[in-house]
Amino acid sequence: MALDTVQVDLANGEQFSDEFRRINPDCAVPVLELDDGTLLSEVGAICQYLEELQPEPSLFGSTPVERAMVTMWNTKIEQQGFMAIADAFRNSTKGLKQNAITGPEQFTQIPELADRGRKRVQLFFEKLDSHLSDKAHIVGENFSIADISAFVVVDFVGWIKVAIPDDAINLARWHASVSARPSAAA
Amino acid sequence: MALDTVQVDLANGEQFSDEFRRINPDCAVPVLELDDGTLLSEVGAICQYLEELQPEPSLFGSTPVERAMVTMWNTKIEQQGFMAIADAFRNSTKGLKQNAITGPEQFTQIPELADRGRKRVQLFFEKLDSHLSDKAHIVGENFSIADISAFVVVDFVGWIKVAIPDDAINLARWHASVSARPSAAA
Repeated sequence: MALDTVQVDLANGEQFSDEFRRINPDCAVPVLELDDGTLLSEVGAICQYLEELQPEPSLFGSTPVERAMVTMWNTKIEQQGFMAIADAFRNSTKGLKQNAITGPEQFTQIPELADRGRKRVQLFFEKLDSHLSDKAHIVGENFSIADISAFVVVDFVGWIKVAIPDDAINLARWHASVSARPSAAA
Repeated sequence: MALDTVQVDLANGEQFSDEFRRINPDCAVPVLELDDGTLLSEVGAICQYLEELQPEPSLFGSTPVERAMVTMWNTKIEQQGFMAIADAFRNSTKGLKQNAITGPEQFTQIPELADRGRKRVQLFFEKLDSHLSDKAHIVGENFSIADISAFVVVDFVGWIKVAIPDDAINLARWHASVSARPSAAA
């Protein structure tokens, strides 16, 4: 499945233009436009839709319990990983002084939130390391969207000058294994 | 489908007990325990699992596009509604001075976050009101989990002394309609 892509120039504020607001009033990427003009925003909704178009190999789990575990872990990764990184990045980056929250409304940075975000990501890495001590992937045996989400967390964390802790050997092993997948280079 | 329930005494910190940490190391409710002992946390994962056990009537959408729209709206409601309420509540409630984030780790309250949370919920109500100007439900014609989530946001918002704005007539109409459903009394 190939999708046409259009880059939105976030660094220069294209997401706040009138044209982009008609595509997503929340002024955020990504957005998937369907052939009939339907506009889907929020990365989880877009991934779910693409999975339904191409369900094999399954990235969301193969049984009701496995699917629920994938959603559970994806939620924890989103809330304890991504949100913490977003807090750290948006509340410490010079160009975002009035954009501490994604979206069209202006919110002033809160410096304590940047410190808290870095601390939370470190705690989350400890938790993931412990969770992965007896597992090849986040949800047991099978690679899933939860592994992709956690991989992106590790990728993004350089932005806030945090890295996988030296003693997190399970997390490092998992990260090396996911990095070796051909899709990780995309 | 009937589920046995066990109340966890959050006001007295039972979620931080050793016994409950074995059930959910994130020290949060709800948790669903399956007959085989599998423990599911995160409300979205639990709802998804229960929906798979009892798929009619559908609460998650009937087509791939509708399901994606439900996930999209549920995510927006979670991030722009629930998270804002949680920020406001946890950063202003006396008993939570060191518990500004759900979970076992202690984080000190940040008073600016309480103000920001209240402001964000008000903006979100304006957005929902506009969205509902030409719709019976959050995702078009059919009642879905997104309506349930938004209904709970309106229910919770009293905790932070915010209410549906007087001029939000579409949101008020929607809320009256959802309130009239027999399940709303549960």
